[in-house]
Amino acid sequence: MKVITVGREFGSGGREFGKRLAEELGFAYYDEEILSAIAKKSGLAQSYVNSVVENTPLQSYPITYGKTFFMFNDVSFDAQWKVIQTQNDVLKELAQKSDCVFVGRCSDVVLDKLNPLKIFLYSDMESKLARCKEKAPEGENLTDKELLKKIKETNKKRERYYRDFSERTWGAKENYHLCINTSGKEIKDLVPTAAAFCQAWFK
Amino acid sequence: MKVITVGREFGSGGREFGKRLAEELGFAYYDEEILSAIAKKSGLAQSYVNSVVENTPLQSYPITYGKTFFMFNDVSFDAQWKVIQTQNDVLKELAQKSDCVFVGRCSDVVLDKLNPLKIFLYSDMESKLARCKEKAPEGENLTDKELLKKIKETNKKRERYYRDFSERTWGAKENYHLCINTSGKEIKDLVPTAAAFCQAWFK
Repeated sequence: MKVITVGREFGSGGREFGKRLAEELGFAYYDEEILSAIAKKSGLAQSYVNSVVENTPLQSYPITYGKTFFMFNDVSFDAQWKVIQTQNDVLKELAQKSDCVFVGRCSDVVLDKLNPLKIFLYSDMESKLARCKEKAPEGENLTDKELLKKIKETNKKRERYYRDFSERTWGAKENYHLCINTSGKEIKDLVPTAAAFCQAWFK
Repeated sequence: MKVITVGREFGSGGREFGKRLAEELGFAYYDEEILSAIAKKSGLAQSYVNSVVENTPLQSYPITYGKTFFMFNDVSFDAQWKVIQTQNDVLKELAQKSDCVFVGRCSDVVLDKLNPLKIFLYSDMESKLARCKEKAPEGENLTDKELLKKIKETNKKRERYYRDFSERTWGAKENYHLCINTSGKEIKDLVPTAAAFCQAWFK
């Protein structure tokens, strides 16, 4: 199977890139499916699964395990660990099923043995701000300053998570095959050419 | 004019990549021509021009200016500066003449205003060693240890030169549009797809 993993700075257009790239290549793209599979496999509530996977600090989320409600920290850790482990299993299972693209989730590390093509997307702060404004969830009306803070914090979290998970440096080009700067570019314009690159790579 | 600049770690196949990419795209590729143009413009001996451009420590090279021979350090600095300045002029002139590809020479910085597509090539040490062995100049019979030292030193020099020249960090992905890991890959296999990327970029 051909597997592509897309690491990405928050605000660099990674999710759109991953979806479009999969479409262009005729590969599967999994996102929501991963979350529901984790919830199903682990018996944990999907909202909790989402919060762990999005690296939201655990303490601020109540945990529902089946129908029982927990607030203890050790349980919190166990449950978090369970989500991560289950996610890894889900990724490995999906990667065996068909050619596919994964965005984030340390999938480059989890699927290392399958020899994925590892892409990393990044961009300058101006572009990140513009993209986040354009793609803002409905009702989110952040000032530029607030948005800047959100972008920085999200990327700090990703960096920390990746480091804790893999002992590698997130975004260090050595860990990827191809790094693409999306500054000032439309993702849809980058995808066909990135797809051509992928096709040649797997030849 | 469309300008592509290729920064590269020593041993990552940058020169071959630049030549082949230019060929694939029908762009001009300048290398030796730059050296002779500098020598002609500056009146400095070509062997001296080469030594400066290759970042070889100045002290170890006698300088011939026209037919006169200098060994003073201040002259050495002046002459080196002259070579660099002349090289910048030559790069700018060539970049106005036709679509082209430049490898190294801090061309990404010198030609910044022309908005070049900036590519950086890198690879792991195993690949660098293999490539350097394959492309070794005739008569060079270095042991692995000696070759490793040569690779590290050359890249250190490039890093220092780039930093002194631009106050930017050599190889930091932020300074490039596209970073390609050539580890374990044949340059000729990477070029067509990189060329597709370039074509889409300039659209």
